[in-house]
Amino acid sequence: MPAPHLLLLGSHCQRYLPILNQHMDGDWKIDAWIPGDEPASLLDKVAQTDALVVGTDTLLSGDYFRSIGEAKSLKYMQIPFTGYDWLDPSVLPAGCTVCNVYGHESAMAEFVFAAMLEWEIGLREIEARFRSGSWLDRGTSFRGRVHGELRDKTVGLIGYGAISREIARRSAAFDMTTIAVSRSQRDLEPPLSWYGTMEDLNLLLERSDYVILGCELNEATRNLIDAEQLRRMKSEAVLVNVARGHVVHEESLYLALQDRKIGGAILDVWYQYPSGDDPEPDEGGPPPSAYDFDQLDNVIMTPHCAARSGGAERRKWEAIADNLNRYCAGAPLNYVVLVTA
Amino acid sequence: MPAPHLLLLGSHCQRYLPILNQHMDGDWKIDAWIPGDEPASLLDKVAQTDALVVGTDTLLSGDYFRSIGEAKSLKYMQIPFTGYDWLDPSVLPAGCTVCNVYGHESAMAEFVFAAMLEWEIGLREIEARFRSGSWLDRGTSFRGRVHGELRDKTVGLIGYGAISREIARRSAAFDMTTIAVSRSQRDLEPPLSWYGTMEDLNLLLERSDYVILGCELNEATRNLIDAEQLRRMKSEAVLVNVARGHVVHEESLYLALQDRKIGGAILDVWYQYPSGDDPEPDEGGPPPSAYDFDQLDNVIMTPHCAARSGGAERRKWEAIADNLNRYCAGAPLNYVVLVTA
Repeated sequence: MPAPHLLLLGSHCQRYLPILNQHMDGDWKIDAWIPGDEPASLLDKVAQTDALVVGTDTLLSGDYFRSIGEAKSLKYMQIPFTGYDWLDPSVLPAGCTVCNVYGHESAMAEFVFAAMLEWEIGLREIEARFRSGSWLDRGTSFRGRVHGELRDKTVGLIGYGAISREIARRSAAFDMTTIAVSRSQRDLEPPLSWYGTMEDLNLLLERSDYVILGCELNEATRNLIDAEQLRRMKSEAVLVNVARGHVVHEESLYLALQDRKIGGAILDVWYQYPSGDDPEPDEGGPPPSAYDFDQLDNVIMTPHCAARSGGAERRKWEAIADNLNRYCAGAPLNYVVLVTA
Repeated sequence: MPAPHLLLLGSHCQRYLPILNQHMDGDWKIDAWIPGDEPASLLDKVAQTDALVVGTDTLLSGDYFRSIGEAKSLKYMQIPFTGYDWLDPSVLPAGCTVCNVYGHESAMAEFVFAAMLEWEIGLREIEARFRSGSWLDRGTSFRGRVHGELRDKTVGLIGYGAISREIARRSAAFDMTTIAVSRSQRDLEPPLSWYGTMEDLNLLLERSDYVILGCELNEATRNLIDAEQLRRMKSEAVLVNVARGHVVHEESLYLALQDRKIGGAILDVWYQYPSGDDPEPDEGGPPPSAYDFDQLDNVIMTPHCAARSGGAERRKWEAIADNLNRYCAGAPLNYVVLVTA
């Protein structure tokens, strides 16, 4: 059997090529294409390929993604991250296996805890004041802010997949109460103290001090959190979105924060992104929302970087190399999200 | 038996009087004195008292503390925090029981995790850049900083008391390796993977990514971490001092940070403090060290506020009320640190 063709599409794959090279052991004919290369050569390469690793920079632009429709012999497409809400399976040939990859769950959970602890303690403000000479926040002062605690607060997880489980494990160690809802009812197991379905969403919203979105974006979850759901939240509660921007209704969220209907929000995912055409987007790019979230003081806002840890990148690309090895060896692939009809 | 005299000394006690009133049920004759009251009346009140709750503001000034030497009938002195390195038991009458109090262990652990996660992720810098319009740190960019993770790092705890145990429990949930040394050898138990005595300090320093001081300040621990110990640490390791400043040799620490011999430091405790004479120290006060730590970019520095959470304050003063109730009822006191000879 001739060596299968593998196409590494986009700058992302080039970036992590050293990890792939270190861990891949299959017999491949490897090709690569990045934005900036000859556009016609993309169609040639795509047309011949059996397996494809798609980089983010080639996904976010419709032009590149449409070229995947020319991959008539494609049998395995590897997405180098988790979300695949952007994927239209109808452009792929029948019988093509699509895999995503994890490895960033613990990085996401660490990011969520970094942000929740910053919300409670306000370390950065304390430090800025202290560096400028003030002892105002010291333990024996009666002025300054007495800071908050995560202890005894309730974390409500919407969706109970891999990321939510990592958050739950840490919440338990922080002596928080952890509750969750997910699409399908499953058995209640530690560290959860309550586990409902999406029909119980309002109950979760009413009980939680931190409402954490850990669900996919799909037609069922688009604008899942709307003005009505935001009204259900406690007035001091914090909404944490590390899922996808559009799980929360954009204008409703902005208004709830502006009018201080909820305590605040920790937002890592957005409504507007830089185009993928530029493989290395420089400073600038569109504002993350049509609304001025950056004018609000009750928001911790970050540029979709929760998973951006060195360890998560390494684990993900090691898992991709392992999946490529599996494909070559005819072994079952990991992280299969769909097989096209 | 006549009601025992209780003296609430210092502004701190006044601040938390509502909690005491809510939880105290003993039959006391209660008196109070705060800095600013007539100095002569302090001596009168001290001379008559059976029990004393000392506020921080009356401890940090030698003048007030010396007045405690006049407490000839004192049988029980309650310190409203944990450290008692400042206490000279010889000024107290024989048979006096001194208690401290906890309740802040989880707040301390939360603070340590807030600071370690800030060290790894750099949330505040990411957010500042994003608010000013930059997508540089987003997950799909190849510029910006790929952030770190706590996962798989090693936490080395020096001292394994209540605070260190709370840190260890959280470290385990973050998939960190946790090791410790303490004065007395005890059995190795989860989540520790290694447990030595102070004789093994160098081994702990060599293995740890985060060296966390959780020990008392006493003659055995003063300058415990000196230039020699700092040299044992990994070049990327971070020293976390939430114990007492003088556990670490001041100049050696500054030089190790300035010369980047270690990765950095998270410092909540210091070498110079505002006087306790001012019960509500305003902005200003002495610099925390004779060295310019505030000119270093590899330090997270805070004004001894790790335990300054609302929950910790509430738990501590509830425990003090409980101890006062125990004294009245003749029940054994909690948190006894010494009984004077």
